Amino acid sequence: MNLVLLHPDDARGPLWLLSDRRARHIIEVHRAQVGDTLKVGLRDGDVGAARIVSIDSNEVVLDATFDTPAPPRSCVELLLAMPRPKVLRRILQNAAAMGIARIVLINAVRVEKSYFSSPALNPEAIDEDLVLGLEQGRDTLAPEVLVRPRFKPFVEDEVPGLWGTADRLLAHPNAPALTSLPADEPRKRVIAIGPEGGWVEFELALLQSHGFRRVSLGQRPLRVEAAVPALVGAVETWHAMASSQLTP
Amino acid sequence: MNLVLLHPDDARGPLWLLSDRRARHIIEVHRAQVGDTLKVGLRDGDVGAARIVSIDSNEVVLDATFDTPAPPRSCVELLLAMPRPKVLRRILQNAAAMGIARIVLINAVRVEKSYFSSPALNPEAIDEDLVLGLEQGRDTLAPEVLVRPRFKPFVEDEVPGLWGTADRLLAHPNAPALTSLPADEPRKRVIAIGPEGGWVEFELALLQSHGFRRVSLGQRPLRVEAAVPALVGAVETWHAMASSQLTP
Repeated sequence: MNLVLLHPDDARGPLWLLSDRRARHIIEVHRAQVGDTLKVGLRDGDVGAARIVSIDSNEVVLDATFDTPAPPRSCVELLLAMPRPKVLRRILQNAAAMGIARIVLINAVRVEKSYFSSPALNPEAIDEDLVLGLEQGRDTLAPEVLVRPRFKPFVEDEVPGLWGTADRLLAHPNAPALTSLPADEPRKRVIAIGPEGGWVEFELALLQSHGFRRVSLGQRPLRVEAAVPALVGAVETWHAMASSQLTP
Repeated sequence: MNLVLLHPDDARGPLWLLSDRRARHIIEVHRAQVGDTLKVGLRDGDVGAARIVSIDSNEVVLDATFDTPAPPRSCVELLLAMPRPKVLRRILQNAAAMGIARIVLINAVRVEKSYFSSPALNPEAIDEDLVLGLEQGRDTLAPEVLVRPRFKPFVEDEVPGLWGTADRLLAHPNAPALTSLPADEPRKRVIAIGPEGGWVEFELALLQSHGFRRVSLGQRPLRVEAAVPALVGAVETWHAMASSQLTP
């Protein structure tokens, strides 16, 4: 927990009262004492610092000041074939830590149908993972997570509205190297990442007909939990270097 | 298993006999039949295709041809503070899939001493994870893995020999952005990645005095299993874009 994420519900007048997992973590893992200072953030708000006013068995009272904007968000959004629930949890945590603004979890031919009825998709479960990611990445703004069990209607009806002006990329082993493509002007980028067995031809064709261009990081298929951070790191770098070349 | 990795021990005259995990995977997961073709690779050698000659309860016999070099290796090597054993396993698998040529697992002040006596560090256990990664990334060349329980002697005595001409990078939140640094000529790059709590000042100073320059992907601390692929993807991209600008 690199940052203690506070919610408006935690407010007690000018102070903040924690009595849940966060309090236990502060007491047992940080082994913090009264008077110590912790990094804090207000959900959907600024970050800052808090002094511990009191510690009482399972309760921690904080005096917090929020004075710094949350870190900038990534230029990258994700269109992700629904992964296994256990893998999904790690991906949500890591995506929140990396500052991804939106994640669409989509069905695909090679996704097991049972994944869509997993308890990991309950809004409370998703939010729990996003909060763990925000605490890791010292952020306060969680990604928007959309769950879409129908591939074709999503691509045809929702992609233009969500990503009308975004640069649309489709990760596929053996496609042209990301760095061989023109980055054009800096803008929002969305990366579509397929299931473990890959997209099928119909899915590739539909995405391409909606403006997604195939890219790869080489010929190696990666597990999705490695592919997500690798692609986000690569696309952010490509984006930043292309942008810096545009400045005179 | 995107590739079946064969060992010289599996050879039976001109054919290849599998009777272990690989055979079960071919039978139960791929549900392959006699006559089907599989992607194969020879450990430390080329990749190619194999036809299934026979399947018999727990045994699979293959007729294999190796005709293509293994995919090119990454320009990136890793100097990694020893992670938790469970996390180490995933990192070894992902690093092998990404084509990392060398991983040094190093001690640091914020590494728990018990990690160095974990069974995950037995050479057989390490090799098992590397093989899983090679099967994922369709590669035949495993990373060299060095375990170094003493930080200072490693940096002082071994770094010059291992990475004398390599570009040495030190990942640290809030350091200058990777993309703001000159990439110079294309060459081997090594990235030092600290433990979950970060490097301490002494470690940062010693690495810097041995030519490591601080870089970051921004101000967000990432979990090490996300930091590794994110940094590898970012450094490979930065390396490729810098190289392409050098060609006339």
